Amino acid sequence: MLTIRAANDTDFPGIWTIFQQVVAAGDSYAYGAKTTRQEARRIWTAAPAVAHVAEEGDRVVGTYTLKPNQPGLGDHVANCAYMTHPDARGRGIGGAMCEHSLAAARERGYTAMQFNFVVASNESAIRLWQKHGFAVVGRVPGVFRHRLLGPTDVLIMHRTL
Amino acid sequence: MLTIRAANDTDFPGIWTIFQQVVAAGDSYAYGAKTTRQEARRIWTAAPAVAHVAEEGDRVVGTYTLKPNQPGLGDHVANCAYMTHPDARGRGIGGAMCEHSLAAARERGYTAMQFNFVVASNESAIRLWQKHGFAVVGRVPGVFRHRLLGPTDVLIMHRTL
Repeated sequence: MLTIRAANDTDFPGIWTIFQQVVAAGDSYAYGAKTTRQEARRIWTAAPAVAHVAEEGDRVVGTYTLKPNQPGLGDHVANCAYMTHPDARGRGIGGAMCEHSLAAARERGYTAMQFNFVVASNESAIRLWQKHGFAVVGRVPGVFRHRLLGPTDVLIMHRTL
Repeated sequence: MLTIRAANDTDFPGIWTIFQQVVAAGDSYAYGAKTTRQEARRIWTAAPAVAHVAEEGDRVVGTYTLKPNQPGLGDHVANCAYMTHPDARGRGIGGAMCEHSLAAARERGYTAMQFNFVVASNESAIRLWQKHGFAVVGRVPGVFRHRLLGPTDVLIMHRTL
């Protein structure tokens, strides 16, 4: 049974475990493998970002963070980043978090959501976001140094809410 | 005679004057009209951003800030933002700052430059960036609330260095 909810301070150890493993792979996020716990905490949980966790029982198996993609005249557009624990993949947790984040974004008054950095080699993620209504609106050449593939394109994806 | 150089602390009053006027127009940057001096200082000058000024005599007529567009595995790509004093437009200051920023980015080891938020109605800026080698690699619908035009598309532009 998967529960998704806003995170509190006591959830950070579980978030940090996932963050470290996802970042160490070097295949989906720009954050370097040496990102510190303090930096990760700021990136993922500091206002205006609102962190969420996906739990199975008392175990954090996924996390997402929701924030405005821009300040001021761009703050009607949300940005969201998702991470699933490597041991918990293939069970629909990413999709469930995406659905939850779309509802959370609507509740907060956002009228669209934008992803700025979807690594082009991450085909399962791209299919998932497309399934959840996102369209590719841009492709930037070689701006991600994939740990295994080297310079890799990044997609910008967008949907209205 | 236009001089472009890295900014120091004593340049901030001149930068702030320009920042306020550009932001008040609500036609090119997302920063809200109520952005405080302290926020502007952080946005424009706090590391890893490196602020620069364009001077005519001892008057700051333009400013740009150069920083990595992403952390870690994306930090080979620079991001740059430029502002020209409204009274000093049409004299090539934006183009001179762009050339200077491309050289400054190369010196710092960046291999590309990306703009994330070029307002689609800002046709003179788009032409200028194209003239300086940037290509449009994405267009995001309605993500800028232009003060006069309402929801307006934003372009992503990129060039290698």
